[in-house]
Formats: sequence, C-alpha cells, structure tokens
Amino acid sequence: MASWSQKTGKFLSDNQLDGFLLLGDSLCNLDLYYLSRFNAPDRFALLAAPSQSILVSGMEEGRAKKESEADEVVSTSDYGIVEKLARFDRPEDAYVEVLKEFLRDRGVKRLGIFGDFPVRIYLDLAADFRVSVLESPVARWRETKSPEEIEAIRSSQRACEGAMGVAIEMISNSRPAGEGLVLGSEPLTSERVKSAIEVFLLERGCEAQDTIVAGGRDAADPHYVGSGPLPANSPIVIDIFPRSKRTRYFADMTRTVLRGEADPEVVEIYGAVLAAQEAGIAAVGAGATGKEVHARVRQVFEERGFPERDGRGFIHSTGHGVGLAIHERPSLSEVGGSLAEGNVVTVEPGLYYPELGGVRLEDLLVVRAEGCENLTRLEKRLIL
Amino acid sequence: MASWSQKTGKFLSDNQLDGFLLLGDSLCNLDLYYLSRFNAPDRFALLAAPSQSILVSGMEEGRAKKESEADEVVSTSDYGIVEKLARFDRPEDAYVEVLKEFLRDRGVKRLGIFGDFPVRIYLDLAADFRVSVLESPVARWRETKSPEEIEAIRSSQRACEGAMGVAIEMISNSRPAGEGLVLGSEPLTSERVKSAIEVFLLERGCEAQDTIVAGGRDAADPHYVGSGPLPANSPIVIDIFPRSKRTRYFADMTRTVLRGEADPEVVEIYGAVLAAQEAGIAAVGAGATGKEVHARVRQVFEERGFPERDGRGFIHSTGHGVGLAIHERPSLSEVGGSLAEGNVVTVEPGLYYPELGGVRLEDLLVVRAEGCENLTRLEKRLIL
Repeated sequence: MASWSQKTGKFLSDNQLDGFLLLGDSLCNLDLYYLSRFNAPDRFALLAAPSQSILVSGMEEGRAKKESEADEVVSTSDYGIVEKLARFDRPEDAYVEVLKEFLRDRGVKRLGIFGDFPVRIYLDLAADFRVSVLESPVARWRETKSPEEIEAIRSSQRACEGAMGVAIEMISNSRPAGEGLVLGSEPLTSERVKSAIEVFLLERGCEAQDTIVAGGRDAADPHYVGSGPLPANSPIVIDIFPRSKRTRYFADMTRTVLRGEADPEVVEIYGAVLAAQEAGIAAVGAGATGKEVHARVRQVFEERGFPERDGRGFIHSTGHGVGLAIHERPSLSEVGGSLAEGNVVTVEPGLYYPELGGVRLEDLLVVRAEGCENLTRLEKRLIL
Repeated sequence: MASWSQKTGKFLSDNQLDGFLLLGDSLCNLDLYYLSRFNAPDRFALLAAPSQSILVSGMEEGRAKKESEADEVVSTSDYGIVEKLARFDRPEDAYVEVLKEFLRDRGVKRLGIFGDFPVRIYLDLAADFRVSVLESPVARWRETKSPEEIEAIRSSQRACEGAMGVAIEMISNSRPAGEGLVLGSEPLTSERVKSAIEVFLLERGCEAQDTIVAGGRDAADPHYVGSGPLPANSPIVIDIFPRSKRTRYFADMTRTVLRGEADPEVVEIYGAVLAAQEAGIAAVGAGATGKEVHARVRQVFEERGFPERDGRGFIHSTGHGVGLAIHERPSLSEVGGSLAEGNVVTVEPGLYYPELGGVRLEDLLVVRAEGCENLTRLEKRLIL
C-alpha cells in the first residue's frame, strides 16, 4: 500500500485538499474496499489525509483493527454516538455530528468527496467544511492490477474453468430427444446445469450470481440467464463470472456449445465470432486503445458478412475490465481509452439473431507491455 | 403494487413534486429493487411520477420489459446515448444529458431525490430542475411486509433452519479430543461446518454471506465469523442469514451449542440469554416500541446479574428488521420506535466475555396485532 499512500498524497496536493472521504458499505462501495481492505456490510467512513483513518461502529471496531489496512481505526462509540442519538431526533443527524467531529479532530478543513457520495451528508458537511466534489481517482487506480491482484483473478478463473468444464460435460453427456436434451432420465434444464456450476464453485470458495446457461431464441438477449429445458441442435451460451469469497476478485468467461445437429448458418456464425475474438485478442496490448480493439472486432464481423443492423448481430461492446467489480474500467468499446500494462480485460464478441439465438465467446486477458496474456485455457468447440 | 402507487401519489402531492428519482444498481440500492422488482447489477434510473418509468441501457431493455414491474421501460439508446457519448468528453456527462431529456419528456420540473442519491448527478440536475432532497419514504414502506413478503421470509427461514440442523448435527456427531473437536478422522473446523451450511443452502436456492461458526475467546466479538478448529467444552455461536436467490428475501437465526463438558458459569450465562430472549419475544407486538423491547431484555440481564459494563456483557442492540436487507427498519434498540403489524424483526440477545467467548440466541418474528408469530421452530439446547 506504499504506492497507494503516495498516490493519495499527490492527489490531495494537486487538488489542495486536507483529505478525501468515502462513505458506504464496502460490499457495494468497491473503492472503499479497495482502499481499506475491510469487508463490511454496514456503513463506515474512510478518511485519506493522507494516512488512512476509518470510522466504524463500536460493534465492528475489533474486527476492523484485525482485518483492515487502515492506519487508524476509531469507533462512533469513541465519539459518543449513544449520547448523540439521545440528543437528536433523527439518528442520521447524530451520525453526521460524529462524522464532523471525526474530521475536525484530524485537521480537515478542505475536504474532497467523489461523485457517488450521498447527497444528504454532502449538504450537511458543506455547511461546515470546504467540500469539493471531484472525479474519483480510485477507479483509475483500480484499473492497473498488482501482481497479487492478477494472481487472485487467475485463481478465480481456474475455478471458473473447472465449473465451465462441469457444465460442458453435462451437455456433452446428454442426448437429444425431440427438441430438448435429456441427461439420465430427466430433461436437462438450465437450472440443473447452473446448480452444478454453483455447487462446484462454492466448494472452491467462489460464488456466482446470474450465471447464464441459455439456449434457443431467448438467448438472442445477451443478458437472458436461461430457464427450463435446454434445446437440442441449437447453440447454448454459458457465461460464468464467479468471485472468490476470500479475495473478492472476479473472473469471467463464456463458451457456446451445441449438442446434436448444427445448422450450417450456426457453424458460420460461430466461425465469425471465433475469428473476431482472435482478431480482438491480437489487438490487445499496452498503448492500444479499447476503441481500436472494438473497431477491429467490428471490422471482422463486417468482412464476414455479419454487420450490426437494426439491433441484430454484434449488439454490445467488445469487453470490459474485471477486478473487484465484474464490470470496471477500462472499456473495450466505442469510448474505450488507452490500455496499460496490468489491465485485466475480457474480449467477448457475440452475434445475436432473434430467430436463431446467440453465440458468444469470452476470454480474460492481462494486458502486457507487448500484447497480452490469456488467463483462459479452456478450448473452444461448438459441437459436442 | 396498487397500494404502492397510491403511496407514491400521496408522497408526491404532500411534497409538491412532479416525481421522484432513484438511481443505482438494484443489487445495492434495495429501495430501487423494492419499487421496480428489476434485478440489475448495472445502474438504472427509476422515475415515480406517479406511474413508474425506468431508464435502462439498451442491453437491459428486453429483460427489463419481461421482469420489472415498471409501467414503462425506456432505454438510453432511445435517447441517443451512442451519439451523445461521441459528443461529450466524459461518458457521465452524456448519461446526465440522457437523464435530463428522460425527465423533461415526462413533464418533470419539481423533482424529489433521497439522501443516498449520488452528489455529482444531483449537482448536474439541480442546474435544470427544482430538486428537493428529502428523506426517503421507501425504507418506511418496506418496514411493513405484505403476506407474500412474509411467505418469502418464512421460506428462507425454513432453509436456514435446515442448514442450522446440518451444522448442529456435525458438532453433535463430533467428539472432544484435547481442546478441539474431531469429526471422522479430521479436526472439525469452522470452515468445514460453514461449507456444509452453504452447500445445503445453495441446493435450496439460497445464498449466505459471512455465516458465523465461532467458538472460544474470539467469539467474544459478536461479528467474528470464526476460523480453524472448533473448541471442545466451550460455546460455539452459529449465526446463519441466508437470502433466497429467487425472492431476494433474507432470514436470520442464531443458536449456541457446546460439545463436551460445560463450565457452570457458561450454563448460567446460557440460561440468562434464554430468559432475556423469552422476555424480549413476549414484549414484541403492535404498539410496543423497539426501545421497550430492548429495555425489557436489558432488565432481565440486570436481574440475573449480567449488567453491561466496560464493553462486557450485552454489548449490542436486541434486534433489527429483516427483509430485502439483512439489517433494516425497525430497530429494537435504544432508539427503536413503534412496532406495527407486518414488521419482521429479530430478537437476539447475547452475552460476551473476553475470557469465555459468546452466547447468543436469535429468532425471527412477525409482529401481529396481538403479540407476534415466531417464524423460528428449531429447539434451543446448549449441551449436545
């Protein structure tokens, strides 16, 4: 965290601030988790001034001292929250009073906050402090992963590949029966496959939300998670993005498979997606822009005869950063800026047609000085 | 949702507003989920004016139309987000421009927002609209559960009890060996028990974060989740709060068990916690205040010779509301207001001593016109 404290010092002096304040729970406010490494479902405050102080409830003080990386942990009890709660009508007013004393005691007069700061407490603080609303530098800091962060993501991706293997094996072992697939004596459903994926991940310390196992026409909606019997002779999109419970870092990958007979058009679509992905991956490297990578992918689709038209075809961006959030900077899209060494990004082109469904392939990459390293090793094969 | 739209209409007219706006992702912003019933990890906007419109990305439009309860779903693509992204330097400025057009098209001039609204967009909107920052009524609306919500919570609590049964059986089947417990040929660890709890819950469509299985002195910190070998002859706190993935409603319960020989002092502490809990439950009912229930629990501890002193003893509040959040209103504490029919609350007294560890018992209750209904059926027994 030495480099973090240097970055903070520079940010504060560039912006003529005594400190900046983050407020929230660190399950939802990932910048707060990134800076404090304190995992808390309840609201706490972090002041970077530039040494780091966090203000937690009395209940959380012991755990915060053990687990967080803050230089100083103080509790609302130290600031008499109980007496203040008795004195104010609204509990929130008592909390703001505590917060103001906490800031004053640390010599803060010129305070920075960021765009997602809650407006009510901003208005209360602005009455007593010189508050500047700034663009957070933390999202930018988070873009470049340290070697430890890359190892955490690699480890989540290993679990993710294992889960993908389980899913593909179930589909591979199933047999077409009419329009659907049957495994054992039961129809193979999206739910059965997702449950197997999730139990596999849980046993490896990972959790997955909104796993996609979607076939048939509904899969033309890239976010449709799938439900009910899986189709025979039709592409099935499997998109898994687990997070390690311990490190909190995500991984992300997608494969598309088909059990039974493939329509020649589907084979052609799959080939185009694979070619577009390979071209996209080849374009990733330090110095390239996300916009260039996206343009390269679109170009391959154009060349192969699959232009985007009327919301059909390649209807989303090429990729996104992955870290503590499943979607974070940098973006590989129309507005994607420069890529830098240590960025971790997906490349995930797809083609979607309401009458056919969807095909998507997604790998996870680390941007290197020259080109990139693919964290994804699992093969790509349409027909099982 | 008829009653929701009536409440909205009244709130808007009481506050002389054309509409109120919520903004966020509905995994973190639970009010947004409560109103829209649209589960989305990416940011969207909800305008209640008083019919409900949501503004989502083009990617989410199809799913939002299928899954949300909004009267109207529009997408940022409808408002030319792509062209605007090309026109503005910062993507956020393009988004704000879309948001303003969306509001103007719905005749909004006087706009209400709530305390947790992000400050940057507030400042941008305040330049063009008459914006009032108000206390959200939604947290209050959420306090009173509908019969469907109570059934969802009951169903989560059934899964929770099953998981608790699995955990207690593992401890019961273990044998004391030296200072620890052994199950099969391996030490019984907190991690083994938590893993069994989590797999059981996952197979029933529930997920659990931060499950507590904690014994020994560290358990004197009520939030310590536990790790490593579980102790023999010492109380083990098991606190499970799963959420249904489908309904998103939580349940919550805690049991404390001991395998081996119990110190007489631990037996006495357990008896006091049980008596305090029974007294607390008996005090819950429509019209009682959370403060009264809390006072009753504290009184029992005083009478039994376990006063709170120097951060030892009963060091937290008596309980909290449970619903879409694990901690929500109403509060059973020093600042707890009136309870009303349909509230769902925990009653969870505990005693904590650094040299002994902790003992806590927690049930989940529905407040009824007369007294309450206990959603928790599992027995309470210290010594296994």
